Amino acid sequence: ISGPLYRCCPGEHLCPPLQSVVQVNFFCDYEESKGNYLVDVDGNRMLDVYTQIASIPIGYNHPALTKVMTDPKNMGTFVNRPALGMMPPEQFSEKLVNGLMAVAPKGFSRVQTMACGSCSNENAYKAIFIWYRNKMRGTPEPTPEEVRTSVINQVPGCPDLTLLSFMGGFHGRTLGCLATTHTKAIQKLDVPSFDWPIAPFPQLRYPLDQFERENAREEARCLEEAEDLIVKWNQKGRHVAGVVIEPIQAEGGDNHASFDFYRKLRGITKKHGCAFLVDEVQTGGGSTGKFWAHAHWGLDDPADIVSFSKKMLTGGYYQKDSFQPDKPFRIFNTWLGDHTKNLLLTEVIKVIKTENLLDQAKRSGKVMLEGLYDLQDKYPHLLSKARGIGTFCAIDVKDEDTRNLLLLKARNKGVVLGGCGTQSIRFRPALVFKEHHAHLFLDIFNDAIAEL
Amino acid sequence: ISGPLYRCCPGEHLCPPLQSVVQVNFFCDYEESKGNYLVDVDGNRMLDVYTQIASIPIGYNHPALTKVMTDPKNMGTFVNRPALGMMPPEQFSEKLVNGLMAVAPKGFSRVQTMACGSCSNENAYKAIFIWYRNKMRGTPEPTPEEVRTSVINQVPGCPDLTLLSFMGGFHGRTLGCLATTHTKAIQKLDVPSFDWPIAPFPQLRYPLDQFERENAREEARCLEEAEDLIVKWNQKGRHVAGVVIEPIQAEGGDNHASFDFYRKLRGITKKHGCAFLVDEVQTGGGSTGKFWAHAHWGLDDPADIVSFSKKMLTGGYYQKDSFQPDKPFRIFNTWLGDHTKNLLLTEVIKVIKTENLLDQAKRSGKVMLEGLYDLQDKYPHLLSKARGIGTFCAIDVKDEDTRNLLLLKARNKGVVLGGCGTQSIRFRPALVFKEHHAHLFLDIFNDAIAEL
Ligand code: FES
Repeated sequence: ISGPLYRCCPGEHLCPPLQSVVQVNFFCDYEESKGNYLVDVDGNRMLDVYTQIASIPIGYNHPALTKVMTDPKNMGTFVNRPALGMMPPEQFSEKLVNGLMAVAPKGFSRVQTMACGSCSNENAYKAIFIWYRNKMRGTPEPTPEEVRTSVINQVPGCPDLTLLSFMGGFHGRTLGCLATTHTKAIQKLDVPSFDWPIAPFPQLRYPLDQFERENAREEARCLEEAEDLIVKWNQKGRHVAGVVIEPIQAEGGDNHASFDFYRKLRGITKKHGCAFLVDEVQTGGGSTGKFWAHAHWGLDDPADIVSFSKKMLTGGYYQKDSFQPDKPFRIFNTWLGDHTKNLLLTEVIKVIKTENLLDQAKRSGKVMLEGLYDLQDKYPHLLSKARGIGTFCAIDVKDEDTRNLLLLKARNKGVVLGGCGTQSIRFRPALVFKEHHAHLFLDIFNDAIAEL
Repeated sequence: ISGPLYRCCPGEHLCPPLQSVVQVNFFCDYEESKGNYLVDVDGNRMLDVYTQIASIPIGYNHPALTKVMTDPKNMGTFVNRPALGMMPPEQFSEKLVNGLMAVAPKGFSRVQTMACGSCSNENAYKAIFIWYRNKMRGTPEPTPEEVRTSVINQVPGCPDLTLLSFMGGFHGRTLGCLATTHTKAIQKLDVPSFDWPIAPFPQLRYPLDQFERENAREEARCLEEAEDLIVKWNQKGRHVAGVVIEPIQAEGGDNHASFDFYRKLRGITKKHGCAFLVDEVQTGGGSTGKFWAHAHWGLDDPADIVSFSKKMLTGGYYQKDSFQPDKPFRIFNTWLGDHTKNLLLTEVIKVIKTENLLDQAKRSGKVMLEGLYDLQDKYPHLLSKARGIGTFCAIDVKDEDTRNLLLLKARNKGVVLGGCGTQSIRFRPALVFKEHHAHLFLDIFNDAIAEL
C-alpha cells in the first residue's frame, strides 16, 4: 500500500490510504449527531449549515427515522434489496403514494425512482431523447436500420440529438450529465464530452429587486441567445431535444434568475418543441419555503420532467405521461433506486407536514437573509451579493482564498459551511433549522469574519 | 392519472400506474422470503435462481444481516447518510479494510466506493481518461487552453479519447456506460452516443474443451481485430485510452471466452498503453467459485481497474495507484456510495469465509452444469450450449419465444429464472445455493421443459 499513512479513525495508529482522502474535511460521529448538530470524532459539536452537501432533510437522528429502523416490519426491506423494476415489494406503490406522489409537483402523476442525482438526470435525458425521436419519427416503431445502428453507436439508431444547458449549471458527473455541467474545469478536464449547445446564464446584480431593469436586460439577452441556439442547432440537423436547468444554479455559485426568466424560458421550449427538464436535485425538498423551487414561478405547466435526489433521500424524476417510455426496459437498471430510502422519505414527508417545516424554512430564511444583509453592510470590503429564497441562501466573499479561510474559521468556531462557485458560501441547513439556529449561526459567522 | 389501473399491492383495489410496470414480474414479500426462497405476495414460495438480477449474495434475510440491522450501534449509519468523500463516519476505513479490502483482487491496494454498477463504470472511465491524458501531457498540470475549453465541452480540455469495448458487452445504461454497451437495441435506441471502437467478441462453441482448436482460431481473429482497432484509432488521433470487458458477457448472453483469450488481451493493452478495465459487476462476488472471475485467468497483473456492484451491495472499483486522481474533486459526487451497504457487505464477506461459500459455489455449480448437460442431451431439439463456471451457468433455448415460455412455466412450478442474450437462460443463484437446491432446480426445470 503506497501513499502516506493518515489518521482515518479514532484509533491511535495511522491508516493506509485506501481511498482518496484529500477531500475529507473531518471524520464524524453519526451516532452522536443530533438535529442541526454534527459531532466529529473528537466530540466537537458543530452547527451544520451544509448538511452533507444539502442532503439531510430533517436533521440528524430524527426520532421519526429511528422508528423506521426499529420497526421489525421494515427489516426485510433493509436486508434484501429488490430489483424494483422487476420484483417490487408489496408496499412499494403504497410508499410511492404516501411518499414521492404526496409531494409531486403540480401536474405530475408519474414518478420514476432512481438511486442518485446522476442516474436521475441520465435517465431523464434518455426519456427526453426517446420522446423526441418518437415525435420526429411519428411512431415509436424504429426502422430496421435504426435497430441495427443503435447497437454500434451510429446514426440513425443513436441520433445526433442534443440538450441545451447553461453556463454555470451543474447536473452531475457521469458522462451524460457532465456534458451539461459547466462549472469548474477540474470536474470536466480530460473527460471526452458531447458537443452540445450551451447558453449563457444571466449574471444578475443583487439584491434582485434593486436592479430590476438592468437584470431584465441581462435576462432578455440570455433568453434570446438560448432561443437562437435552439433555432440554429435545429437548422443544422442537430436538434435540441430538451433544455435542462436548475431553479437556482447551486454548485455553480448560487446564481439566481427571476421567476419571469424561467417563465419565458418555459415558453421558448414549448414554442420549439423541446422538453423542459427542471433539475431540483439541490433545490428540491423544501428549503426554499416551497417543496419545489420551481413552484415559485407560478406556472400551470412549469416543466415536463423534474429530477430530484439529495434531501429526497432517493433519486428519481417526475415526468409527464408522454415521457413514459413506450416499451419495457428502455429506462431500466438493476435496482431502480433503493426502497429503504422510500421508507425513510415517507416519514420525512410526514414530519415536514406535521411540523410545518416549509413555513419554518421561510421564517428561518428571513432571519438568515436579513442577517446576511446586515453583515455585508458591516463588512462591505469582504462580503457582497447576499441572496436567497427561504434558507437556500448564499453570500460572496471578496476572493477564493478569503472564502476558504472563512470556511475554516467558521468551522473552528463550530459552524460547518460549504463553498460554491469561485468565491461564494452556500447555506444549506436542514428543514429543522429554526430562527434561533439562524441567530446562532449569524453570531458565529460574524465572529469568524471579524477575525479576517 | 392516465393508463390502466393494475394490481400493485395486496389490497383489493386496483392502483394507478405511477411507474412503468410493464417489466414487473410479480410483487414480493421480502419479510417472508428466506435463504434461496423468494415468496410472492400471494404466499407462493419459489426457489430463486435469479436473485434480483444476480444481486443477492447470501440469500434472503440471512441472520448475519438481520443482526447488522438490530445492532443499535449501526442506527446512526442507517438514518444519516454521510457525504463519504467529505465527512466519512469514524468506522469508514475499518469497514473498508474488513469489507472491500479483505476481498481485493491480487495486486490492488486502493478502492473507490460508488453506489451502483453504472457510476462505478462511469467513474472508472473518467479515471482512465484522466490517467491517459496525464501520460500524454507528461504532467498532470493542464494548459490554460485545456482549462478554458474543458468547461465548454471542447478539445483539448475535453479530449477526443475513446474506449474500446466488445460486441455483446454490457456495462450499464448511463450515457458513458451505454456507449460501451452493445447488447439489445432497445437499451440504446434513440440515445446519442460516442463513436468509439467496438471489437468482436469470440463466438465460441460449447463445451469449450471439445472445440479448443476452432475456438482458438475465433479468439485469435477477435484479438487481432481488437489490436488493429487500437492501432488504427491511435493513428487517427482518437486514442484508445482503455479497453473494457466482462470476464463472462452476462447480459449479452453468457458468452464465455477462454482464460487464454483474456491473458492475451491483457498483453495487448499493455503493449499499446491502454488501461484494462475488467467489469465484474455481474461476475464478481463469488459465484464462479473464486471471488473474482478474472482470478481464473491466473495472471499476476490481470487488470488496472476492476469494477463491481450487485452482490457486493455497494458499487465501486479497485484501482492501481496510478489511477488515483492527482487532485481532489476529480472523481467525486455527493454520496460516493452508501455506507449502510459497506456495513452489510462486511458481514456478507465474513459469512462467505466462515461458511466456505466459494467452495459451495464450485460444488453446486458442478451439480448444475452436469445436470444441464444431461438435459441438453435429453432435449437436443430444445436446449444447447450448456456452459458455466461455478454456479454462473447458462443454457440456450431454441428460440426467444420458447425461452420466454420456459421461464414462465418454470416460475409457475416454483423456480424464478432470468433470460439473457436473445435465447439464453442465465442461472444466478445466491452463494448459499447448495447441492440439494441444484437438484431441486434441475427436477423442476426438467418438468417445465417436458411440458413444452
Ligand atoms: S449512477 Fe446513480 S447510483 Fe450509480
